[in-house]
Amino acid sequence: MRFAKGHGTGNDFVILPDPDGRLDLSPRLVTRICDRRTGIGADGILRVIRAKAAADIAAAEDTWAQHAAEQAAEWFMDYRNADGSIAEMCGNGIRVFARYLLDNDLAGGPELPIGTRTGVRVVRQAQAKGELIAEMGPAVVTGDGSARIGERSCDGLMISVGNPHLACLTDIPVADFDLTRPPVLERGRFSDGANVEVLRVTGPRRVEMRVYERGSGATLSCGTGAVATAVAAAVAAGEWEPGAETPAAERAWTVDVPGGRLTVTPSATASLLAGPAVIVAAGELDSDWLRATA
Amino acid sequence: MRFAKGHGTGNDFVILPDPDGRLDLSPRLVTRICDRRTGIGADGILRVIRAKAAADIAAAEDTWAQHAAEQAAEWFMDYRNADGSIAEMCGNGIRVFARYLLDNDLAGGPELPIGTRTGVRVVRQAQAKGELIAEMGPAVVTGDGSARIGERSCDGLMISVGNPHLACLTDIPVADFDLTRPPVLERGRFSDGANVEVLRVTGPRRVEMRVYERGSGATLSCGTGAVATAVAAAVAAGEWEPGAETPAAERAWTVDVPGGRLTVTPSATASLLAGPAVIVAAGELDSDWLRATA
Repeated sequence: MRFAKGHGTGNDFVILPDPDGRLDLSPRLVTRICDRRTGIGADGILRVIRAKAAADIAAAEDTWAQHAAEQAAEWFMDYRNADGSIAEMCGNGIRVFARYLLDNDLAGGPELPIGTRTGVRVVRQAQAKGELIAEMGPAVVTGDGSARIGERSCDGLMISVGNPHLACLTDIPVADFDLTRPPVLERGRFSDGANVEVLRVTGPRRVEMRVYERGSGATLSCGTGAVATAVAAAVAAGEWEPGAETPAAERAWTVDVPGGRLTVTPSATASLLAGPAVIVAAGELDSDWLRATA
Repeated sequence: MRFAKGHGTGNDFVILPDPDGRLDLSPRLVTRICDRRTGIGADGILRVIRAKAAADIAAAEDTWAQHAAEQAAEWFMDYRNADGSIAEMCGNGIRVFARYLLDNDLAGGPELPIGTRTGVRVVRQAQAKGELIAEMGPAVVTGDGSARIGERSCDGLMISVGNPHLACLTDIPVADFDLTRPPVLERGRFSDGANVEVLRVTGPRRVEMRVYERGSGATLSCGTGAVATAVAAAVAAGEWEPGAETPAAERAWTVDVPGGRLTVTPSATASLLAGPAVIVAAGELDSDWLRATA
């Protein structure tokens, strides 16, 4: 079984090329591969499968894979969390997915539509060397909320980027927040929980951000969290105009995360997330190891 | 640059085959490869180099590599910690090193002498499937000592297995000890620090053990720590006879560590450590990634 390993701002993935959908990617195999000591180690798996092949497999992703195939997306990103569960979308993962396709001449540019479980998303080459830009879909401010983060009470904006976020603007360096334990969300307002971001403005159109992800804890980076962060920064700057025709360049925010730097252009229709996408290595899983896993 | 990844009881390594000593293995490259998010991820690197080639390189390992070449050890284990520093010996690493040689027909059995920075060590096939037995050199009880581990005060034996250990026998389940912070060693007795083990007898000739390693923190396994643990158990059982001719099978202890199970035959001359050694995957580091690292 072939694999590659890659990362975007420290969010890392094992990529499994499976164009024709022949892999039996059980939750157990996913967790074994993602184990950082006894496997390869990663935050998740990106299975690289043709949308048509994915649509032919009787599984939960059928609808979205079918949709991708109909929308002329050649490839479908079958993303799995390290715990074996299925995930909808990953802003860092889709760039790494696209990088893998480009490096291996499985797709060309300039626009690369990729099927995901939130619909078809387009990835483009960025001007900055080695960076890719991914379409992240709409961002919507849904209200105010608050959370207790360590010993601090924080007010923030509830923002949906497909998944729910609470983005808390602060004037304290984000390194000072205790994210070793899950933030305690205000009762009754977050029926599905939320990813919690703390952000601070550090310069013109620039913020630093740390995130506590539902189910994953404090991570080095979170793509949808960076989008929510840019929305909260734009609201605070008095420039969040969901319907505005402002050019993207003028709306872009630099978001420094623990794992690197992302550039976000927030939008109520199609936010853009730019950042690095790196392939580290490629090879084959050992057949004895795989047999022991089965 | 080719690589493999493997582990022994959860102690994991990136293996770099370099028979002729052509790799420029800088501390920076080591730390980049061992980074669990932006590299491959491992506790350390095992460079697989011919003893003769290692002896020809003007470096700190010359003496030991020279020694290995003279002792007719074909291969030298150039072990590096994840932080880029050089390490003498690793009881889990040497089994993984031997497994790599055997899997790739770079060496045969039944006895495989491997050069290390503590001298030539012999690895043999064990009876248990998939397990290898490594010679670990002498173990010596050097005195009594104590440490504060979390909120508990623990007495133990100071034991040298090439490196210094404090092995503390307890009747509390080892899971109950707080190893999130470094144990505080008794003043004035540990000039070089020590690896600290807590151990508890759980059955006939069987103990459970957890370890806090100098410089690495709480780990899933530690080969020399398992040897120190078996010595402390043997002393407590009244059977530590450094000069005894007791057959190995009668002296063996099963040591359960968080990452798996090891079997130790402690000895004042040549302790034996048996356990699994697994290759997970093999491949090549991405050339663009390597260039960005240089």
